[in-house]
Amino acid sequence: MRYPQPHRNGGETQQNFHSTVSLQKLKRFNSLILVFRFSGFCFTLASAVFMFTNYGVSDSLDWLNFDAFRYVFVANMIASVYSLFEMTAAVWEISRNATLLPEICQVWFDFSHDQVFAYLLLSASSAGTEMARAMKGTCTDGTVFCVQSDIAIALGFVGFLFSGVSALLSGFRVVCFIINGSRFYV
Amino acid sequence: MRYPQPHRNGGETQQNFHSTVSLQKLKRFNSLILVFRFSGFCFTLASAVFMFTNYGVSDSLDWLNFDAFRYVFVANMIASVYSLFEMTAAVWEISRNATLLPEICQVWFDFSHDQVFAYLLLSASSAGTEMARAMKGTCTDGTVFCVQSDIAIALGFVGFLFSGVSALLSGFRVVCFIINGSRFYV
Repeated sequence: MRYPQPHRNGGETQQNFHSTVSLQKLKRFNSLILVFRFSGFCFTLASAVFMFTNYGVSDSLDWLNFDAFRYVFVANMIASVYSLFEMTAAVWEISRNATLLPEICQVWFDFSHDQVFAYLLLSASSAGTEMARAMKGTCTDGTVFCVQSDIAIALGFVGFLFSGVSALLSGFRVVCFIINGSRFYV
Repeated sequence: MRYPQPHRNGGETQQNFHSTVSLQKLKRFNSLILVFRFSGFCFTLASAVFMFTNYGVSDSLDWLNFDAFRYVFVANMIASVYSLFEMTAAVWEISRNATLLPEICQVWFDFSHDQVFAYLLLSASSAGTEMARAMKGTCTDGTVFCVQSDIAIALGFVGFLFSGVSALLSGFRVVCFIINGSRFYV
C-alpha cells in the first residue's frame, strides 16, 4: 500500500506527486465500482423480493412449487448479500485508503466472487425464463403470478449486467496486481 | 509488435534478450489459449451434433419442437464456429509472431467475443437444463431422447467452462494492452 511521503527533496516530491495521483485515480476507480455494486444490489434485492412475495393467487401457483423460481430467488438473494458486503469493503477502501482484507486476498476475492455470482445470476435468470415460458399456457387463471415472475426474472437479468461489469472492473485490478504487484494502475 | 533486433551494443543486446524472452513467454501463453480453445471447440461441436441428431424417436419428440433445445444447438454451433476462427488466429500468431487483425482490434475482439459466448453457452445450457427437467414426466416413452438431450446440455456446460477460461486469458491480454500498450506482459 503506497501512501504519500513527506517532502524532502526533488526525487521524493516526484514520488509524492505520483502517489497522490495514484490515490486519486484509485479512489475514482473504486467509486465507479461502488456505483455498479450499489446498482447490482438494488436490482438483485428487488428481484428476490418480487419473487418471494409471488404467492397467494391460488394453491398451485406459488413460487416455492417451481424449482427454477426457487433458484432465481436464492441466486438473487446471495448476490444481493454479497453486493452489500462488497459495498462495505469499497466504502472502507475509499475512506481509509486500505483494503478490508489483505490486498492480495481482496483483489482475488472480489474478482472470483464477482465472476461466479455474475454466472450464477445469468444461469438462474435463464432457467427462470425457460420456466416462465413453459408456464404461459397455464397463465390464464394466474396472470398476476406470471407477470410478477417475469418482472423478478427481468430484474435478475439487470442485476447480472451490473455484476458482469463489476467483474470486469475487479478483473482489471487483479491483472494490475499480477503485473505491478499492487492494485494501483498508475 | 516487438521483434528481436540485431546485436550492436550492450543496450541493444539487453533489449534483444528481453524481446526474445517476451516472444517465448507470449508463444507459451498463446499455446495455452490454443489448448483451451481446441477443447472448447470439441465440446461445443459435440454438443451441437448430439442435439442436432436428437430426433426420430416419435413425432412429438424432436429437438426442433422445443425452443430451449433449439437455443442449445444454436449457441453451441455459434461458439464452435467462433472457436475454429480463434484457433486459426492463435496458430497464425504462434507461427508468424503477429496477430491476424491489428493488435488492438485482436485483443479486444478476442476478449469481448470470449466473454459474450461464454455467457451465451451458460444461458443456453441453463435454459436447456430447465427444459430437460420439466420434460422428465414425459420421458417414459422417449428415454433415448431425454438421455441424448441431457448429454448435449452437459457437453455445452463443459464447453462453457473452457470458454470462460479462454475469456480470463484473453482478458489478461487486454489489460496488458491497456497498461503496457502491447499484448506482451514481460
